[in-house]
Amino acid sequence: MTTRQRISDEFTLIARHFAPLATEPGAFNLTDDAAVLTPPPGHQVVITSDCLVADVHFRAADDPADIAAKVLRVNLSDLAAMGATPSAYTLAAAFPPDIQEDWIAKFAAGLADDQARFAITLVGGDTVSTPGPLTLTVTAFGLVADGQAVRRSTANTGDTVYVSGTLGDAALGLRYLAGKIDGLDAESGTVLASRYLRPIPRLDLGIKAAAIVTAAIDISDGLIADLGHVCKASAVDATVEIEAVPLSPAALTALDLDPDIATIPLTGGDDYELLLCAEPGAAAAIAGLAEETGVPLTAIGTLRAGSGRVDAIDRAGKLLSFEKGGFRHF
Amino acid sequence: MTTRQRISDEFTLIARHFAPLATEPGAFNLTDDAAVLTPPPGHQVVITSDCLVADVHFRAADDPADIAAKVLRVNLSDLAAMGATPSAYTLAAAFPPDIQEDWIAKFAAGLADDQARFAITLVGGDTVSTPGPLTLTVTAFGLVADGQAVRRSTANTGDTVYVSGTLGDAALGLRYLAGKIDGLDAESGTVLASRYLRPIPRLDLGIKAAAIVTAAIDISDGLIADLGHVCKASAVDATVEIEAVPLSPAALTALDLDPDIATIPLTGGDDYELLLCAEPGAAAAIAGLAEETGVPLTAIGTLRAGSGRVDAIDRAGKLLSFEKGGFRHF
Repeated sequence: MTTRQRISDEFTLIARHFAPLATEPGAFNLTDDAAVLTPPPGHQVVITSDCLVADVHFRAADDPADIAAKVLRVNLSDLAAMGATPSAYTLAAAFPPDIQEDWIAKFAAGLADDQARFAITLVGGDTVSTPGPLTLTVTAFGLVADGQAVRRSTANTGDTVYVSGTLGDAALGLRYLAGKIDGLDAESGTVLASRYLRPIPRLDLGIKAAAIVTAAIDISDGLIADLGHVCKASAVDATVEIEAVPLSPAALTALDLDPDIATIPLTGGDDYELLLCAEPGAAAAIAGLAEETGVPLTAIGTLRAGSGRVDAIDRAGKLLSFEKGGFRHF
Repeated sequence: MTTRQRISDEFTLIARHFAPLATEPGAFNLTDDAAVLTPPPGHQVVITSDCLVADVHFRAADDPADIAAKVLRVNLSDLAAMGATPSAYTLAAAFPPDIQEDWIAKFAAGLADDQARFAITLVGGDTVSTPGPLTLTVTAFGLVADGQAVRRSTANTGDTVYVSGTLGDAALGLRYLAGKIDGLDAESGTVLASRYLRPIPRLDLGIKAAAIVTAAIDISDGLIADLGHVCKASAVDATVEIEAVPLSPAALTALDLDPDIATIPLTGGDDYELLLCAEPGAAAAIAGLAEETGVPLTAIGTLRAGSGRVDAIDRAGKLLSFEKGGFRHF
C-alpha cells in the first residue's frame, strides 16, 4: 500500500535521484547548462538515441528498475553493434502527473545498477512533466579508435551471416506476459519474459568482433527486417536458412504449443542480439570469438549480389514470405 | 483545407524528411545504428539535452517551423552559455496518432533553416509514435578548446552581473498570445510573441565572452531563478537592482497596461538571454564585447560573500520578495 506522495520539484528530483548517478567530473553533478566530455586522443565518439514510450515500447506497470535497464540497454546494444565501448549517456524523462517519487527512486536505482554493470555514467539530460505517458529518451555515447566503427553498409557478397545467442525469446516473452501463450510452463515463460524485460547488450562481443566482421547490426526490429537494413545499406541480397536460426529451449517449448507463432523468431524483434557478417575465411576467427566471449554465434545464411532483398528458405529450400518484415514502429 | 494523410512508416519518414538533414559524413545518412563524431584535437565535446512537450513547453498549434526552431534553439542557448561552438544534434521525436506528414515536412524544413543559420547538422535520433502529446528531445553537441568551457560555479565575490538583450519579452509574448494583455497594440504584441516563439541563442556572444567572464548561464527559468543557480553553484549571494533590468519598448508598453505583471521580467523565463559574471576590472572588455557582437550588455547587480541567496532591490534600496523564484517545470 503506497501513499500518494507529492512529487518534488524538478531541481529537487534531479539533486536527489539523478545527480548521484553523475559520477563523471565533466557532468558537473548535473548543476551546469551542459556536460563536457573529453574523448581520449585517437578516438571518435559514437552517438545513439532511443525514445521509449510507456505501453508502446515497454509496459507502464513493469518494475521501474526493468524499465531503467531497458532504456539504457537498447542504446548500449546500438553501441555494441558499432563496436564501441560505452562511456556516458543523457536521459530526458517526461513524467506523467501520477508518477510517484518512489517510482523515480526505484528507476534511478535501476540506472545505478546498470551504470556499474556497463561502466557508464549519466552526464546530463532533462526532467519535465507531460500530460501523456511516461516518455524516456536516452542518448548514449561510446568510444571507438579512429576509423574502427563497424558499419551496416560494408557487408560483401559471399559473406556468411551470423547471429548471436537465440532469437525470438523477447517477442515470445512479451506474448507470454500478455497471457497469449496457452499452456506454457511458468519456468519457460519466466525465461522468455526476462529476455523481453532485460535485454542483454552484446557489448563484449561487439567490441571484439570489430576486428573480424565486415558489418554488424543489432536485432531490434526483427531478424528479417534488420538483415534487410544491412542488405539495403550494403547493396547485397541475403538468403537465410530458417532451420538454422538458433532458438532457446524455452522458445522451442512455446513454439510447439502454437504453430501460428512459428515466425516470431524471424520477425518479432526486441532481441538485441547482434547480426554479424564475415568472409567465409573468417569462420575459425568467428568460432574463436564465440568461445572467447561465451556468446554462441550461429551461421544462418549468406550474402550474394543483389540490392537489398532477404529470402528465407525452409529445409526443403522453399522460399517463405512474410506479411510484415518485422516490427515497425509505425 | 488539408486532407487527412496516411502517415508513412518510420523508415520512410526518416528517409524522406530527416535523412536530408544529416549532412555530416559520420551521420551515415541516418542509416546506421549510431553516428560517429570526430572532435578536432585539443577540443572537448559539450553535451546538452532538452525535452519539449506540446502544450507544456510550446503550443501544439504553433507553426511547425517555429516549434523546430524552439527545440533546437533552447539547446543552442545552453551551448552559448558554455562558450561552445555548436556542431551537431540528435532528435528523438514521439509523434501523436493525428500527426500529418505535412506537419513533419514543415517541421523538417524549420530544422533545415536553423541548421544553415547555426552551422549544425542532424546526426541521429529516433522516431516513434505516442498516444500522448508530441514530445521532442534534442541532444546538442558543441565544441570547446580543452578546459575553456564556461561554468556556472566559478563566479566570484565582487563580480558584476550582466544580462544580454532585454528580459521578459518571451513571457509577456506568451501572455499576449493567450489573450491576457488587454489593450496591447498589435505591433508590440507581435514583437513580444516572436521572442517567445523564436528565441535567439546568443552563440556569438557566449563564445566571445568565454575569455572575459568568470561564469555564465542562460536565462530559461527566469532571471531570479537562474541567477540563484549561479549563486548556489558558486557559493555567493547576489543583489539585483530591478530598475536596471533591461526592458524592450514593447515590454514597457505591456507592463504599463497591467501593474500585476511587473515582476515578469524577473521571473518569467524563456528569455534565452545570457547572464554573465565578470570582475569589476573587466567592465571595458564587457563594453567592447557588446559593441563587437551587437548585443547590449547591461550591468544589473553584484555578487558578494554568501551561500546562494538572490536579493532584488528597488530604486529606494527596498528588498522585494517573490512568491516564486521563477518558472519551474514541476
